[in-house]
Amino acid sequence: MHQNFILAHSWSIIEEGYEPERFKSSESLFSLGNGAMGQRANFEEFYSGPSFQGSYIGGVYYPDKTKVGWWKNGYPEYFAKVLNAPSWIGIDFYVNDDLFDLNTCLGVQNFKRELNMKSGYLSRSFECVTMKGIRLKVEALRFLSMTENELGVISYRVTALDQAIEIRFEPYLDSGIKNQDSNWDDDFWKTTSVSYQNGRSYILAQTLKTDFKTCTYMYCELHVDQKKSQFDILSKEDTSIRAASGVQIEKGQTAQFYKYGGYTTSLNHNEDGLVQAADYCIDTAISKGFKVLFAEQEEAWANIWAKSDIVIEGDVKAQQGIRFNIFHLNQTYSGKDARLNIGPKGFTGEKYGGSTYWDTEAYCLPFYMLTKNQDVARNLLVYRYNHLDRAKENAKKLGFNSGAALYPMVTMNGEECHNEWEITFEEIHRNGAIAFAIYNYVRFTGDFNYLKEMGMEVLIGIARFWKQRVHYSQAKNAYVMLGVTGPNEYENNVNNNWYTNYIAKWCLEYTLTQLHKLRDGALEEYDRIRGICALTEFELEQWGEIADQMYFPYSDEHQIYLQQDGFLDKQLQLVSELQSDQRPINQKWSWDRILRSPYIKQADVLQGFYFFEDHFSLEELERHYNFYEPFTVHESSLSPCIHSIQAAKLGKMDQAYDFYLRTSRLDLDDYNKEVEEGLHITSMAGTWLSIIEGFGGLRMENDKLSLRPQIPEQWDSYRFKINFRGRIISVHVDCNSVELHLKSDIPMSLRVFDKKIELAPNKTIKV
Amino acid sequence: MHQNFILAHSWSIIEEGYEPERFKSSESLFSLGNGAMGQRANFEEFYSGPSFQGSYIGGVYYPDKTKVGWWKNGYPEYFAKVLNAPSWIGIDFYVNDDLFDLNTCLGVQNFKRELNMKSGYLSRSFECVTMKGIRLKVEALRFLSMTENELGVISYRVTALDQAIEIRFEPYLDSGIKNQDSNWDDDFWKTTSVSYQNGRSYILAQTLKTDFKTCTYMYCELHVDQKKSQFDILSKEDTSIRAASGVQIEKGQTAQFYKYGGYTTSLNHNEDGLVQAADYCIDTAISKGFKVLFAEQEEAWANIWAKSDIVIEGDVKAQQGIRFNIFHLNQTYSGKDARLNIGPKGFTGEKYGGSTYWDTEAYCLPFYMLTKNQDVARNLLVYRYNHLDRAKENAKKLGFNSGAALYPMVTMNGEECHNEWEITFEEIHRNGAIAFAIYNYVRFTGDFNYLKEMGMEVLIGIARFWKQRVHYSQAKNAYVMLGVTGPNEYENNVNNNWYTNYIAKWCLEYTLTQLHKLRDGALEEYDRIRGICALTEFELEQWGEIADQMYFPYSDEHQIYLQQDGFLDKQLQLVSELQSDQRPINQKWSWDRILRSPYIKQADVLQGFYFFEDHFSLEELERHYNFYEPFTVHESSLSPCIHSIQAAKLGKMDQAYDFYLRTSRLDLDDYNKEVEEGLHITSMAGTWLSIIEGFGGLRMENDKLSLRPQIPEQWDSYRFKINFRGRIISVHVDCNSVELHLKSDIPMSLRVFDKKIELAPNKTIKV
Repeated sequence: MHQNFILAHSWSIIEEGYEPERFKSSESLFSLGNGAMGQRANFEEFYSGPSFQGSYIGGVYYPDKTKVGWWKNGYPEYFAKVLNAPSWIGIDFYVNDDLFDLNTCLGVQNFKRELNMKSGYLSRSFECVTMKGIRLKVEALRFLSMTENELGVISYRVTALDQAIEIRFEPYLDSGIKNQDSNWDDDFWKTTSVSYQNGRSYILAQTLKTDFKTCTYMYCELHVDQKKSQFDILSKEDTSIRAASGVQIEKGQTAQFYKYGGYTTSLNHNEDGLVQAADYCIDTAISKGFKVLFAEQEEAWANIWAKSDIVIEGDVKAQQGIRFNIFHLNQTYSGKDARLNIGPKGFTGEKYGGSTYWDTEAYCLPFYMLTKNQDVARNLLVYRYNHLDRAKENAKKLGFNSGAALYPMVTMNGEECHNEWEITFEEIHRNGAIAFAIYNYVRFTGDFNYLKEMGMEVLIGIARFWKQRVHYSQAKNAYVMLGVTGPNEYENNVNNNWYTNYIAKWCLEYTLTQLHKLRDGALEEYDRIRGICALTEFELEQWGEIADQMYFPYSDEHQIYLQQDGFLDKQLQLVSELQSDQRPINQKWSWDRILRSPYIKQADVLQGFYFFEDHFSLEELERHYNFYEPFTVHESSLSPCIHSIQAAKLGKMDQAYDFYLRTSRLDLDDYNKEVEEGLHITSMAGTWLSIIEGFGGLRMENDKLSLRPQIPEQWDSYRFKINFRGRIISVHVDCNSVELHLKSDIPMSLRVFDKKIELAPNKTIKV
Repeated sequence: MHQNFILAHSWSIIEEGYEPERFKSSESLFSLGNGAMGQRANFEEFYSGPSFQGSYIGGVYYPDKTKVGWWKNGYPEYFAKVLNAPSWIGIDFYVNDDLFDLNTCLGVQNFKRELNMKSGYLSRSFECVTMKGIRLKVEALRFLSMTENELGVISYRVTALDQAIEIRFEPYLDSGIKNQDSNWDDDFWKTTSVSYQNGRSYILAQTLKTDFKTCTYMYCELHVDQKKSQFDILSKEDTSIRAASGVQIEKGQTAQFYKYGGYTTSLNHNEDGLVQAADYCIDTAISKGFKVLFAEQEEAWANIWAKSDIVIEGDVKAQQGIRFNIFHLNQTYSGKDARLNIGPKGFTGEKYGGSTYWDTEAYCLPFYMLTKNQDVARNLLVYRYNHLDRAKENAKKLGFNSGAALYPMVTMNGEECHNEWEITFEEIHRNGAIAFAIYNYVRFTGDFNYLKEMGMEVLIGIARFWKQRVHYSQAKNAYVMLGVTGPNEYENNVNNNWYTNYIAKWCLEYTLTQLHKLRDGALEEYDRIRGICALTEFELEQWGEIADQMYFPYSDEHQIYLQQDGFLDKQLQLVSELQSDQRPINQKWSWDRILRSPYIKQADVLQGFYFFEDHFSLEELERHYNFYEPFTVHESSLSPCIHSIQAAKLGKMDQAYDFYLRTSRLDLDDYNKEVEEGLHITSMAGTWLSIIEGFGGLRMENDKLSLRPQIPEQWDSYRFKINFRGRIISVHVDCNSVELHLKSDIPMSLRVFDKKIELAPNKTIKV
């Protein structure tokens, strides 16, 4: 059974009832982020029950010493960890001198938590009876400002329900924090200063080894009715600072507490100016006040939804799922800073180190590209361009030369930081995804300048890598690629993984094509790039020869491309023949058993058919889908979305809908029983794809948008928006018709069901 | 360049000259052991220069918490470590109250270290000038008694060369020791008692987690001329105890110090009786005294050499090499205790955890079987029989059932304790070596009782494993075995490793044959074993079917069996085409590059041809040798010996000799630049094989010994002995003739160059 305590609601994630055993899951689900920092839904006040504390700052990481059984040449020295950062949210309070702890209350009623996705805030409220028998009502509301991205805001209200009480608030900052995920239990942070001035508190702390400097700050206000109380510093320890303010409230009266806090870091400020920068944030908070900041937050989210909302009528769970996905994608990455990227768990947990994977290029790019302004997606590409030199160093470390680039499987700063040989050294398909993202970006945006300015250099480095990674096999009379791990990580060190061979061939061809285009259309640029890269004609010939003679394993019997050499030697039992107590196999089976089984974590042949669908006929797709889907266990969060898209294309709408639900509610319903650790942020982009490309049938065809909308029978209608080259196009689909609306001053044409449609500015058209 | 400071000498390993940078290497090379305990050649006295301290007790290990990047189901919880044990050898001395430290002496002359292999002791002597300008001569001699195996003996002599001095000896015990090889820097030892009584010192210490209880003890004597001095306790700390005795010696006079020490453990004694057992050792030492103990040591080694010596005339380096190998094999394993086994580094270092590998069955067994009494080799087999239940648990943990047994790749107590998936889960060929050892033992000894009593159960467990590990491939119309790592560990997770498939097939056939023999010859035993194992006729049929239809990759073009599926797709460059700065590839190349290269760590196809040579013609052997040898980099210490044997068989005596030198002097000449870490003990048995089976051509043929001796042109003659079923047969080979001598009361026949020869008791015969 999946988790099912989240109430169905179209715009909010709601938890009702006080059930501490699900709090760690809730802390993930209700996480907040604003692209620059993030915060799990930990309580502000002291709580002795279960909790997994997490505060994160985008781009601040620690290079934890790696641990492996036996060291292998080429392993990176460290594994980059996203860091649990100093905590700024803490607000302890005392009732008549007793520390309040919800966990020891005699009774808790009307406990409710809500993640309001429309306006971008988290609220929590409850009534309770303390151990001393005092009845209180607590209402907390918090958000991380989308407009002031170094600022977080908390409104915290305590109401005395039955009797007058003395209440004392003790807001604090704490840099004495630990990572749960730490290889050697090293300290990751060093606190250099704890200070207090004019009611403002600051902790200066820096990461060990990486030396990121941070200032965690807070400023508080306490109001009862119109009366405002003073805060005094209460204590200053090595790694914490605590202020205090007490007040008496009568029965029925409310103490209204505000806390403003957050981080300023050396990523964005002069090292010596962190306190000054924090002061600027506090000044802003004071001058705007809670109400204005909250209104700005609502407006910022309204602007986001205006470009990216998807409305589903007639299926609240599906509606909630897609908004949850879109909401978290926006919380994780704002696209303002090309040094940042999208970690698989975003700001919701420590796992996967907060690092960048191929997920960004293969899954996330289209979401940001079609729901944001163009510069956001461009920044994702610039990120990799900025890492090109390190990708070349990485390739050199593994024995490649002459400007070959191998992008890392896992990275924070361009260096590889993962150390399992079958992944780090062999999962080289990531290089292909980075090239594909360039192609995908350019075809959607038409931004050919990116190619000239940066993209060609990246493509050349990647092409050189593939050239050296293959060799000509006399036995096969073709170029082969041995010893790789494909996206299907349930196979390691295989020969001729079809997906990897295919994307390598495509990279070589695409690079050649773009070079030729450049030569024919912008000779000066062509010569400049040739010069920078010391490119020779002979290299280009070699690339062409390899692309033409690449080997692809194929079964004449099944008329399908084989996932890798020898796939048909396996014992070809279907997933349907697996007993349910054997799943998920990655929790039940030893690794060798998984490897020699036919079971597929994510079907990489189908991933290839997804990327390059115009290279294959519908019949070929159907044959491959029918062959591989029955072996696929979908134990990668990145798997169901692709199958949903392809099932939709093949008219298998029931399957498409099932896969959609699975991907969109993966975390809400906790399919993999691990949501405590954080959310699957990158696969959320896949959910979006499964509506836009799957049900909506959106494609680029000959530099034009094309749609082939379908609708699952469970839905009455759905509506999505995309931002295409500066125009917002809304698509509304119900069982009978498709309505299009163009928000733009310039008309445009597109194809719907292969019919050319002209869209007039700011008009709706029914197809 | 290889290391070359060891002086060539036929019976001793000699180091001359004071060169501290080679001391860690010497500490390995000059190690002592007596099968029960071992000791690196660390100095007795304080030394502030480079040193790698190591004292080891057979069978005493620590289950160190494992470290892996990502945990995989089926991994063992721990990695067993041989432990650096409390030190008993320490003897600090003070000259006129200054602590003596060779490292700070003003001059050192005539420094000499000798491992006397004939008599089994280590001696060391030097003359030096202390920082205060005092000239001394020091002579240390130490041995671990082969007769009293809990007792070590040190004679330590200091002579005042130029002037009278006050000398104070401070012998000590120290349990405050660390392992260099430790995953988490945990303490491995807990000291429970430090005590002193009647001039005797004891430290009781136990291993954490495994709770092995040990008593480290010492008793000392100090003589000057005929005068004996008293020892007093000097200090007693938490983890050390130190006694002291001072004396004045005149110019030219010698202080003669004796230290007796060692370990008694809960492996062999009641926990409460460890001090009493230590007292028994001390009583023995006192009553026998140094001279008697030394004479016993000489005698014990004379007895060992009488059965196992190999004499090579005309090639001192080759002579020294083989004796060095035989000597260390005898120091490592005495065969008295079936709980012990042979770690790849014996008692000479911490690496490989001191655990048992397939090396024992594949390489070591023949040495002990043919140079010792039969019960020694039998004990090696009993060791695995005693672990059968754990091998079944191990198989179950990996998903196998019904009594399948998978012996661990690395073990201390029968449990698997290694955690790299490609080795732990995939290097399953070890199961075959364990079955082969049973076959090998029985054919040489004729001890069929072992099969009935224990061996059949082991074979049935192994056969059941293979049955479940293969499956029928429709594509190949045969049984295949996917996802294995063969003895050539430079390939991981391959399909149909020829060696593994072949030994699996052989195991099934051998088990069936022995079962049928039993059924036909000892029905009662057969029924008993069938009952114990719940064996069914159907199972036996299945085994036969699998053995008959096993798949073996084969190249029609080359007429050779392929190492694994797809081997010919590799870029087939030869080792001779590799630049020397690229070697050893395991230090120069990343793991993926090694894996996709054709280069072979040890050629497992040739290993199979070695085990099963009577299944293949000489032409087939030559074809396979000529194909695989040029790809073999011999980066496993177990590789050159097999090539030496096969080169000899093929008449390629130059190659055979080169491989012989490489294997026999691997450590003496430090081919792999790692002798500091310890010696390659198990491959030393391979050296012995390369003379006996390689040059000597010894085989078992139809229950008879057979010899086809050859001699390398570098040698004048060689002589070896084997103990065959209780008879000692000496074989002397020179360029012209072969002489045989039988030491036995009963005549026997054997074959030499396919001629039947009758050996009369205690007579020499020339062939």
